[in-house]
Amino acid sequence: MKIPKSHPRYVMLSTQQKLVRGVEKGITSLEGLMAHGRGESFDYLLGEKTHDFALKAIDAAARLLLKAKHPIISVNGNVLALVGKELIQLSKAIPAPLEVNIFHTSKKRESAMKKELLHLGASQVLMPSRQFTISGIDHNRKYVHKEGIYKADVVFVPLEDGDRCQALVKNKKKVITVDLNPKSRTSKTATITIVDNIVRCMVLLLVEIKRLKKKGPPYATMKYNNGMALLAAEKRLRS
Amino acid sequence: MKIPKSHPRYVMLSTQQKLVRGVEKGITSLEGLMAHGRGESFDYLLGEKTHDFALKAIDAAARLLLKAKHPIISVNGNVLALVGKELIQLSKAIPAPLEVNIFHTSKKRESAMKKELLHLGASQVLMPSRQFTISGIDHNRKYVHKEGIYKADVVFVPLEDGDRCQALVKNKKKVITVDLNPKSRTSKTATITIVDNIVRCMVLLLVEIKRLKKKGPPYATMKYNNGMALLAAEKRLRS
Repeated sequence: MKIPKSHPRYVMLSTQQKLVRGVEKGITSLEGLMAHGRGESFDYLLGEKTHDFALKAIDAAARLLLKAKHPIISVNGNVLALVGKELIQLSKAIPAPLEVNIFHTSKKRESAMKKELLHLGASQVLMPSRQFTISGIDHNRKYVHKEGIYKADVVFVPLEDGDRCQALVKNKKKVITVDLNPKSRTSKTATITIVDNIVRCMVLLLVEIKRLKKKGPPYATMKYNNGMALLAAEKRLRS
Repeated sequence: MKIPKSHPRYVMLSTQQKLVRGVEKGITSLEGLMAHGRGESFDYLLGEKTHDFALKAIDAAARLLLKAKHPIISVNGNVLALVGKELIQLSKAIPAPLEVNIFHTSKKRESAMKKELLHLGASQVLMPSRQFTISGIDHNRKYVHKEGIYKADVVFVPLEDGDRCQALVKNKKKVITVDLNPKSRTSKTATITIVDNIVRCMVLLLVEIKRLKKKGPPYATMKYNNGMALLAAEKRLRS
């Protein structure tokens, strides 16, 4: 079904369609669809726009990614379905490799994701290996790639789950996430939480990275307090 | 995957599993999964419990259903996957027929739903007919059954969409809905909105109907103001 651009819910409906296509392609899980719905409600309560607290987080995230020694982009089924092209652009702009890492175990889905990333123009896709693990996680997400998440100092991992975010931080990695729920464990544990819809903020993150790169290094670190950003987001959510 | 009852998110996860099974059985749509996720967030913000405003709505709804001349229960793919057995019990307790009515057109899904309802013990399932329509709706949901929604004075239609709820009310029907978003168009348009998780409130509605029936008619109408109930729900949501 083609949604007319004039439809008052065009963005929401076309975003949903991307996820339905993701399921059809075998890259998005059914649980991922429900997780997306949860995000939709928070976005609705936040007025479906990018707020100041998110803009600050995006700025801090861009700098952290550019200053990282070994940055990595962790990709799951929802992120790939929603912002696949932007992931490739981000990977090339930073530069940082892309690594497939999904919650609901499925070799088939991991392969479909790799295929999709390559199809979208990724030059290299890192896959989880059984030889390298992140301690403190007891499910599929603990398996990582030696040259990717395993050795990374900064992990960009949007739409993350709480367990893994905690484990990555405990393993001394800086974690940048995107999460519309400012009260989630992921939001509270991450180094930088962008409380925004990933479809909106990925574009803004790309713009910011390109702007900073044009000026060139050294990249000054932003004064940024994640707890304050989350409080501002919660206040907006409840208002 | 069997979820242990000791899991802190047992109810949420087993509810999700029912919907995933619903998709596998061909009765729940992928869009339905996202809609469920939206509900989860509102439930989370409401503390995942049944509040006073919902109890009052349940009481008023039970009386309205028992006093109706031609009550009907409208069933969609999410409702059937989540509370199939309770729907049959409700149908027998009132008594009121069950009518299949879905948003995303699919004859195949309608048939799968009918089959599932009969399998769960429904004695009769009304299906939409092309001869009878509800005016003011321009999609699949307008088609109704002559002996069901078409002639009903009271429609119990949980997890409804805004367009249809408005159309039913414009057609002089009293509408009882279940919706976790107190600000939705459905919530605002319905005669009685139960702002609660359907998995919790269906059980309570059944208990209330059985309690009232034990005493027998006449059933006094409850003093109930839907706008006030929605305001109370929104206040709780934002607190």
